[in-house]
Amino acid sequence: MKGNVIVGQSGGPTAVINSSLAGVFKTAKERGFNKVYGMRNGIQGFLDEQYIDLSNHIKNELDLELLKRTPSAFLGTCRYKLPDIHEDKSVYERIFELLNKLEIEVFIYIGGNDSMDTIKKLTDYSMLTGAKQRFVGCPKTIDNDLAMTDHTPGFGSAAKYIATSTKEIICDAMGFSYKKKNVNIIEIMGRNAGWLTGAAALSRGEDCEGPDLIYLPELTFDVDKFVESVQKLLEKKDVVVAVVSEGIRTADGRYVCENSSGSETKDAFGHIQMTGTASYLAGVVQKKLGCKTRAVELSTLQRAAAHLASKIDVDEAFNVGGACVKAADEGRTGVMVVIVRVSDDPYQSATDVNDVHRIANDEKVVPRNWINKAGNYVTEEFLDYVRPLIQGQYSPMMVEGLPRHLTMHLKNYDWITHNHHNK
Amino acid sequence: MKGNVIVGQSGGPTAVINSSLAGVFKTAKERGFNKVYGMRNGIQGFLDEQYIDLSNHIKNELDLELLKRTPSAFLGTCRYKLPDIHEDKSVYERIFELLNKLEIEVFIYIGGNDSMDTIKKLTDYSMLTGAKQRFVGCPKTIDNDLAMTDHTPGFGSAAKYIATSTKEIICDAMGFSYKKKNVNIIEIMGRNAGWLTGAAALSRGEDCEGPDLIYLPELTFDVDKFVESVQKLLEKKDVVVAVVSEGIRTADGRYVCENSSGSETKDAFGHIQMTGTASYLAGVVQKKLGCKTRAVELSTLQRAAAHLASKIDVDEAFNVGGACVKAADEGRTGVMVVIVRVSDDPYQSATDVNDVHRIANDEKVVPRNWINKAGNYVTEEFLDYVRPLIQGQYSPMMVEGLPRHLTMHLKNYDWITHNHHNK
Repeated sequence: MKGNVIVGQSGGPTAVINSSLAGVFKTAKERGFNKVYGMRNGIQGFLDEQYIDLSNHIKNELDLELLKRTPSAFLGTCRYKLPDIHEDKSVYERIFELLNKLEIEVFIYIGGNDSMDTIKKLTDYSMLTGAKQRFVGCPKTIDNDLAMTDHTPGFGSAAKYIATSTKEIICDAMGFSYKKKNVNIIEIMGRNAGWLTGAAALSRGEDCEGPDLIYLPELTFDVDKFVESVQKLLEKKDVVVAVVSEGIRTADGRYVCENSSGSETKDAFGHIQMTGTASYLAGVVQKKLGCKTRAVELSTLQRAAAHLASKIDVDEAFNVGGACVKAADEGRTGVMVVIVRVSDDPYQSATDVNDVHRIANDEKVVPRNWINKAGNYVTEEFLDYVRPLIQGQYSPMMVEGLPRHLTMHLKNYDWITHNHHNK
Repeated sequence: MKGNVIVGQSGGPTAVINSSLAGVFKTAKERGFNKVYGMRNGIQGFLDEQYIDLSNHIKNELDLELLKRTPSAFLGTCRYKLPDIHEDKSVYERIFELLNKLEIEVFIYIGGNDSMDTIKKLTDYSMLTGAKQRFVGCPKTIDNDLAMTDHTPGFGSAAKYIATSTKEIICDAMGFSYKKKNVNIIEIMGRNAGWLTGAAALSRGEDCEGPDLIYLPELTFDVDKFVESVQKLLEKKDVVVAVVSEGIRTADGRYVCENSSGSETKDAFGHIQMTGTASYLAGVVQKKLGCKTRAVELSTLQRAAAHLASKIDVDEAFNVGGACVKAADEGRTGVMVVIVRVSDDPYQSATDVNDVHRIANDEKVVPRNWINKAGNYVTEEFLDYVRPLIQGQYSPMMVEGLPRHLTMHLKNYDWITHNHHNK
């Protein structure tokens, strides 16, 4: 009899992070592992002994399919960075004490850069102490900024939502342009990497002109030059659409959104909440050019809109989850499962594993040669890379006209934990 | 041989306004009318002789189906109010000169309150002058604020998008709540009528708690009381979700968004652009309660997200368009087609016609007894009224992973018009 598996989710969720969770659960069961535990709220909740037996929540194939269609982190998430081992051993002692108590053989963590740092540290500690558990990272992030993998699960669905919404916003703006020029500025997530912002260009096609201007955070942003570009476009056309990353900065290194008086807010942890870039720029354009403007911030929905998930993305996320279990079952530890692009046309991908030490804390940004010379659009190479990832639909299960989700928030399941924080 | 039909679109578009256009076109052809013209940008464009022959753009059944799935106003829209007849006859003389020149028998205008005012005035003028054309109004508005009709085409799809997005936003927020309470404020369109804001409550069900607080523009909003309600909720739960109308006002009659420094902007016509209500309130909550907040404005997508249209809504919009042609063909003029709810359960509806003089410029708001006593939620009666309207999906035609739209912007069709404004 094999031992137990524990899986956690960490960092910002995606539309398909639960598809990876479903993949972990299914493969673990199929490969004969005993229990599959879920940490509640990642390693942070686990340290508080917050965990559940996933079998109590995924009771049949329908639950599994619902889970694949449920956005956000089913298990809850956290933003919690483990201390360096030499700084504070006690945290590690606590974690391994719990892992031993639960007879955990495999530890899987679904997350982005910070989460891979957690896998790296736990692996290092296990090496130092000769602990038997195996640690595998499962990639996820809408930002697509993880190294060593062709792309990350979560990115494709976010890109599909952004391209669709951009198309609909452009369509709407076109209808309003008679004798009344209008400028629309759409703000997209991605503080340092412009993958999602660039994906807005996918809206361009036979039935849509796409955005006119796209500004990625990889390059310095010049407000005056931007206004000038808009002005030039307005001489030729009635509707101008610019897409900007929330993370664009001016030459002095300041985020553009820091200029936005009302919107510069910090969260409880001192992180600046990036918001207000589009709104600020719309104000500048309106003041300088006097035309009608509209700022649209796609906000949380970029990572939560499971109703428009990409089938490729849901399937890959599921496969990547299963591949984590397989890797651990075959004895691998300290690795992250990655996606390899086997073929571009037709698009085919496969999973592989890579040393997590080569991945953690490295941020993959859009290469300069995938941005045009003027620095205000992405190239065809960029689009060829992204386009396969938004293909296909994973239709929501509609109940009473709305997508149904799997949830544990509203039901009184048998909590294993001793100190459920909601009580 | 019957004469010609002309149809225009006016005011803010919806996800299904083009489904009504498709209905007008199809029924006009089936009933043996000769040409079906489309005014470009409503009566404003028509006065500039901007019109097209719809047969050049809807060439087959596939085009018709694409049109039903295309958001925004296919023909372009306008916000143009006709002068009173006694004030300026020349505009009317010009319109009827054009109608006669084009041998128009039936004039159909798809729009909201202002558009019905146009139908009313043109009918009145035709009565005064003995003109033979018949004028029929086709209702549309996401705001659902038209009198005499059970509801308006466009409302159901916007409600479905809002309820789905609210559900996804709540799901996302729940995942983040571990030892970090968060308050989410969602801003919904509807300046004076709270139909759309209330529809966010549809998200509540077996798998979602729904919003905690809902504030409609029908009632005075008290910022301090709001903060107090949020504080009370935070004592019991980790995630608080409030949904507010963009049009809520404080006791002094000022819009809440007018307090939002950066966001109080006026468009070229002096209308205040309603935006920033959620952002302002999030700032107040963060300052007073010190917790993490997030403001989400659903913005343009509420009226443009055809990818999540309600089947009931698309079908009704199509039928209402056809019923306009039928009414005119049967000799009616000065009427608007309305929707009558024949049965609640199972939901059934039918079209009827009503005198446009009883409809124009009247605004239907949410009745006080459909809002709870505390003024911070809608009642079950409200939900029973809205729920049938979001049922069923009208799946987009997906091409390369994105919804395909019918458009005339990118192709060189044979323009009838003499002075196409884009040239």
